[in-house]
Amino acid sequence: MKLELLDQLREVNPIAYNISNFVTIQDVCNAISSIGASPAAVQANEELGEAQDLIKVCQSLTVNLGALIDPQVDHIDEIIGFANQYHKPVIFDPVAVGASPSRNRRALAILARRDIAVIRGNAGEIAALIGADWQAKGIDAGTGASDPVQLAKTAADQYHCIVVESGRTDIITDGQTVVKVHNETDLFKLRVGSGDILSSLIGCFCGITDDMFEAAQAATAIYATTGELVAATVKATQPSVFSATLIDQLGEVTPNLISQHVRYETLREAK
Amino acid sequence: MKLELLDQLREVNPIAYNISNFVTIQDVCNAISSIGASPAAVQANEELGEAQDLIKVCQSLTVNLGALIDPQVDHIDEIIGFANQYHKPVIFDPVAVGASPSRNRRALAILARRDIAVIRGNAGEIAALIGADWQAKGIDAGTGASDPVQLAKTAADQYHCIVVESGRTDIITDGQTVVKVHNETDLFKLRVGSGDILSSLIGCFCGITDDMFEAAQAATAIYATTGELVAATVKATQPSVFSATLIDQLGEVTPNLISQHVRYETLREAK
Amino acid sequence: MKLELLDQLREVNPIAYNISNFVTIQDVCNAISSIGASPAAVQANEELGEAQDLIKVCQSLTVNLGALIDPQVDHIDEIIGFANQYHKPVIFDPVAVGASPSRNRRALAILARRDIAVIRGNAGEIAALIGADWQAKGIDAGTGASDPVQLAKTAADQYHCIVVESGRTDIITDGQTVVKVHNETDLFKLRVGSGDILSSLIGCFCGITDDMFEAAQAATAIYATTGELVAATVKATQPSVFSATLIDQLGEVTPNLISQHVRYETLREAK
Repeated sequence: MKLELLDQLREVNPIAYNISNFVTIQDVCNAISSIGASPAAVQANEELGEAQDLIKVCQSLTVNLGALIDPQVDHIDEIIGFANQYHKPVIFDPVAVGASPSRNRRALAILARRDIAVIRGNAGEIAALIGADWQAKGIDAGTGASDPVQLAKTAADQYHCIVVESGRTDIITDGQTVVKVHNETDLFKLRVGSGDILSSLIGCFCGITDDMFEAAQAATAIYATTGELVAATVKATQPSVFSATLIDQLGEVTPNLISQHVRYETLREAK
Repeated sequence: MKLELLDQLREVNPIAYNISNFVTIQDVCNAISSIGASPAAVQANEELGEAQDLIKVCQSLTVNLGALIDPQVDHIDEIIGFANQYHKPVIFDPVAVGASPSRNRRALAILARRDIAVIRGNAGEIAALIGADWQAKGIDAGTGASDPVQLAKTAADQYHCIVVESGRTDIITDGQTVVKVHNETDLFKLRVGSGDILSSLIGCFCGITDDMFEAAQAATAIYATTGELVAATVKATQPSVFSATLIDQLGEVTPNLISQHVRYETLREAK
Repeated sequence: MKLELLDQLREVNPIAYNISNFVTIQDVCNAISSIGASPAAVQANEELGEAQDLIKVCQSLTVNLGALIDPQVDHIDEIIGFANQYHKPVIFDPVAVGASPSRNRRALAILARRDIAVIRGNAGEIAALIGADWQAKGIDAGTGASDPVQLAKTAADQYHCIVVESGRTDIITDGQTVVKVHNETDLFKLRVGSGDILSSLIGCFCGITDDMFEAAQAATAIYATTGELVAATVKATQPSVFSATLIDQLGEVTPNLISQHVRYETLREAK
């Protein structure tokens, strides 16, 4: 796992363009800024001039389907098209597609037309994207009979991209190799936007390397491990304190510190 | 007062659908998550598919008129119509209707067409809904000559719903019985979104019982009492620390703790 | 420098109308509330009734171009027109115009048609407004060959307004006299929305005096000095703690405390 990408990120200070939901965007942008990238949250305008200007200068685009309003939804597909055209990696967070068939159809239409570098979702969202049997609950993962690893691998195969399926164990796969990150805290679930931040941090790392699989692994491991370390310093009933401390610590952790605390395993498929 | 509804809420973990203003939605969703419910903030889309999907799976809908943009405003009436159709209780927060005649007209049009379970506002907002004499000031209650209890009772009668009129003393009424909650701190006023959070917590409680009056009482008493308890631990000039601690404490308080500290009275109208 | 305007602001409690980006609006409104003004964030509706209602009762309008969506962008020009008509001062924050030629054209169209009291931006944004040579970087100032003081003076001359060009040294000018405020902390740059808050605090002060130059100076000096004082109490890697403490301290600082710590110089142009 290339944790040294964190040093590289801080040196490059990539511009991370985010089309995100307005519920959590403040935390998302502060996390991006804290870890060492430069957040940009220009929205879609009818003529799309600003969006196109920003695609040209950014290093990656993260698209989050949560709580969007019409002008955003209508233009997301076109903006992802710009990103494809300018060869900027696109990270796609299909928030709550398991809870809304309408939203799932929108997500599938985008996936059918555009090139996505990384999909980041919980098991319920990944299951919805591949039509697997799963009972999602609102923005939460819910429960299902399918094997989480198999869900992620199938989605990666089907959409030709990296899949990060987050949960108590985070699963990162390119469809063949599977990396599991075991660092965790229940506080992530108590704080709205924990998943949104992970998607956007993956976006930051995808902006500084051509290897999307390594970018996704490093971002996920750094976020999960930092969260676990911060959780050890607060009470289980302090999600607000946890969140503020986590955002700050994202600016303080080093590859060395993470490597001492990360717990992960890499499972390679036999050919 | 049925404070044990708090235990029930945490067991049920209801999905609380919120159409809210984007200024305070992050605090609102974090408060919902902290107390033990599941926030959902899907916005209105032109085809309204996502909104309708979510109405089907949620337990309540809270609508907040603050800082909305067009696509939201245009579709609010229809989404409340879905909620009525699927028998999901609607909590209505008429933010700043006292400061804007245009917004007041929008609110009155909704109240005329749709079934509302609970209206939550300050005295200036409740006064505007019933055309009473009152001088509102922006998002603040302002001052007026009318009796606050009478304002709330008149509004409850007129709109056939529960009214929660919040202020230094919170007034909850079904038009006949009046419950006054006296717990308070000035820090609520210093923090933007204190009222929005109360409305949305009422929404959480309305999602787990058929008794809207009891739901409104429990939510108001728990929020006011938790706020007062937290205020005792911070300085009067620390609204940010107060807010973060309050959100966290909403996940820690118990019916037993609240019952020890709540100060309320119930006034029943002589027949 | 008239720091006593802070006492006056707290006595008047002006309504500060903000059309701002949804990334940072919660911090912005909480800062406005903390310092002693009353925030209002009504958005643009198609019929513009609510916006016009609010223009009538507010004391100033702050317009921030960051992360706006269509209905807002389309109506900003008209709402500024209302503010001009009702003689309410307009503070204009041209977020990231240096990074987006499309957005810069929108900003220039507004400046050509409407009366602006104060422009607040970083050097890259001010440079873009006057077509000076500068390399902006996303929402950050970037670097350029032009003299920052000359940029600010040229913009003030060209648009007949006060210019606040913020950076490590904040420059406030009416085109002739230049005030430099030297208080600073790097934490401002780590926290998204630091500039947005400054623009909106200037809006608060412009709402209580006819002297826009004094209002801009007082707001800038109070914000920079409070930030520097707070930074001395937190670690350099704690932007979240810094931000929460800063917002709270805006309600606690006094003209006397600021006058003891502010470091500024006034440069008058020889006639």
